[in-house]
Amino acid sequence: MSADPHARIPDHAARRAALRDLLVENGADALLVTDLINIRYLTGFTGSNAALLVYAWDTAEDRTVICTDGRYITQVGEQVPDLRAEIARASARRIVELAGEWQTGRVGYESHIVTVDEHRGFVAQATGLELVAAPGLVEQLRMVKDAYEVEQLRAACAAGDAALAALIERGALRPGRTERQVARDLEWLMFEHGADAVAFETIVATGVNSAVPHHRPTDAVLATGDFVKLDFGAVVNGYHSDMTRTLALGAPDDWQREVYALVRESQRAGRKALKPGADCAGVDAAARGVIEAAGHGELFVHGLGHGVGLRIHEAPGLAKTGTGTLLDGVAVTVEPGVYFPGRGGVRIEDTLVVHEGGSELLTLTSKDLIVVE
Amino acid sequence: MSADPHARIPDHAARRAALRDLLVENGADALLVTDLINIRYLTGFTGSNAALLVYAWDTAEDRTVICTDGRYITQVGEQVPDLRAEIARASARRIVELAGEWQTGRVGYESHIVTVDEHRGFVAQATGLELVAAPGLVEQLRMVKDAYEVEQLRAACAAGDAALAALIERGALRPGRTERQVARDLEWLMFEHGADAVAFETIVATGVNSAVPHHRPTDAVLATGDFVKLDFGAVVNGYHSDMTRTLALGAPDDWQREVYALVRESQRAGRKALKPGADCAGVDAAARGVIEAAGHGELFVHGLGHGVGLRIHEAPGLAKTGTGTLLDGVAVTVEPGVYFPGRGGVRIEDTLVVHEGGSELLTLTSKDLIVVE
Repeated sequence: MSADPHARIPDHAARRAALRDLLVENGADALLVTDLINIRYLTGFTGSNAALLVYAWDTAEDRTVICTDGRYITQVGEQVPDLRAEIARASARRIVELAGEWQTGRVGYESHIVTVDEHRGFVAQATGLELVAAPGLVEQLRMVKDAYEVEQLRAACAAGDAALAALIERGALRPGRTERQVARDLEWLMFEHGADAVAFETIVATGVNSAVPHHRPTDAVLATGDFVKLDFGAVVNGYHSDMTRTLALGAPDDWQREVYALVRESQRAGRKALKPGADCAGVDAAARGVIEAAGHGELFVHGLGHGVGLRIHEAPGLAKTGTGTLLDGVAVTVEPGVYFPGRGGVRIEDTLVVHEGGSELLTLTSKDLIVVE
Repeated sequence: MSADPHARIPDHAARRAALRDLLVENGADALLVTDLINIRYLTGFTGSNAALLVYAWDTAEDRTVICTDGRYITQVGEQVPDLRAEIARASARRIVELAGEWQTGRVGYESHIVTVDEHRGFVAQATGLELVAAPGLVEQLRMVKDAYEVEQLRAACAAGDAALAALIERGALRPGRTERQVARDLEWLMFEHGADAVAFETIVATGVNSAVPHHRPTDAVLATGDFVKLDFGAVVNGYHSDMTRTLALGAPDDWQREVYALVRESQRAGRKALKPGADCAGVDAAARGVIEAAGHGELFVHGLGHGVGLRIHEAPGLAKTGTGTLLDGVAVTVEPGVYFPGRGGVRIEDTLVVHEGGSELLTLTSKDLIVVE
């Protein structure tokens, strides 16, 4: 087992240095960062109001500045001791004002995050600088996980694995219990096994409900003969795990064995296609082709997977419409599914880190069809 | 005790009718709704990808249309049986395209939600219509809670009250335990008392940490003589409760009694100032004045409160910079605090619904200083 993930320290300065290289490439003098997750990635700050200005040309970081409001005076000092902090309620506008006073030049803003109204406010404040759209730069860095991040993802996935094992072990998956009860137990077990939070609303879908890809737990009762689909994740230090397993309650029918084997084969093909340089759409196609060849392509109604990290869904997208190629160190899910409406469905999902010569599997629960008697 | 909140049904058609009146007032022919919470409010749909078009002039709702992607085909049919559904991955762009085909005229969009990049995409798709900024219309409706919503808020607040009572009852608040352990127990107890989820990351702050307004639970150990500040909430059917209590571990010192009495007096003044027609900034001033008169104005470093409902923070804001006036049926928090850095702090917070002739208090836990021996 790895060391306590809470004991490690992320290297925020190295991340800001990497961002500087991107800014130079993009011809920006500075980036106004307003996405809170991106700010957390670059500084460690976790408050609910902040803006950050990172300069392309100032390697000493003298002018890198974070702004937050009065509630976070103590917190910003503790979490971001290495940067200058400003206190203002309208944090982003204050940063735009400062950048103007400092005659910054071309200031990129996160046009995929900033709303039309916020942008109007920035423009009103922007004297002495030029605002330019600079979408997705920090997200581009965040795709490739550093050692600290992989450690957190490992711990989050381990919490999920341990919780599912304990759920089965204690007999919590049995006919007569409701989806809601099972979901609550599973979430509680994640906390017991080290989760700081749950990564998203846990999916427990039994019987015909397993045919609904994103079913929310109801008072539906588990019954012998059901598929039970569990899609869940833990958060450790802000990092999300994501895993789906579909189990059979009692001896499975032939159709259940067949669809399970098909999805498993598709998922294996998807994992095998993961490598640095692989085309994101091609990875989807590798898994989808298996299901299409069996004549069920129209029942696989979603993309193959997505990046995962400080958000449960982040770049890259593994889908028909996916763009770009994988890099070494990218963390993604692989989660094909086949859903027969009114009957039942199967999804199998892992979280992995892409590497040359073989990806690292972080979700370690068996993908054999687990039959709960 | 009230009836099971899960048994009641919200009247989405009535909410859409109210929105139509606002659209007519604002000179728009239709509104493109892309905020998922606003879509949930207007339709009941809870999926993670959707866009909605509501017409000002079509009372029969023939052309009101919701768009989501393939994952939610079954779900949208179940949750929104009364509206036409389109299936497309780029849901908002598909709606813009349809509105153009239908020669809709002036189509409002949520400029406080739509990003600069999304807006650029809409414009590229917009033929046969005019896109106009229309921020905050659904939020304006959402401020005033209908009977269904008040019922959900009551249930969420009741879950919080019951969880705190059980926490104290079972002796979980005692010297030697950590903030993290207490936070986990409290969250679990909310689930046991009917919560579907926790409303936000629970704050447990002991001793000097109680001086940090938005402290995150750590491994700090509770000790005799500490203030323990607990800020937490439950979600029931999407509605959030929000309550803070500050307790004393062991007999409180004089300074602790004094600051507690001061914050309590301030909180009472804030609650008393709540009434239909009251100025939002004035309500803040009523509570803040009590703390300022005691010479501690600079230690009350945040606003007095905020609206609460489908989001934990929504309109209106009760703060120095608050604008507008309260309406009958608005749900808000009242939560003054006084924080002595390096020493400790007190916050007392309730959730209430504003009414003529007296607001309804939804968080019922005593505001006497609770001393845990």
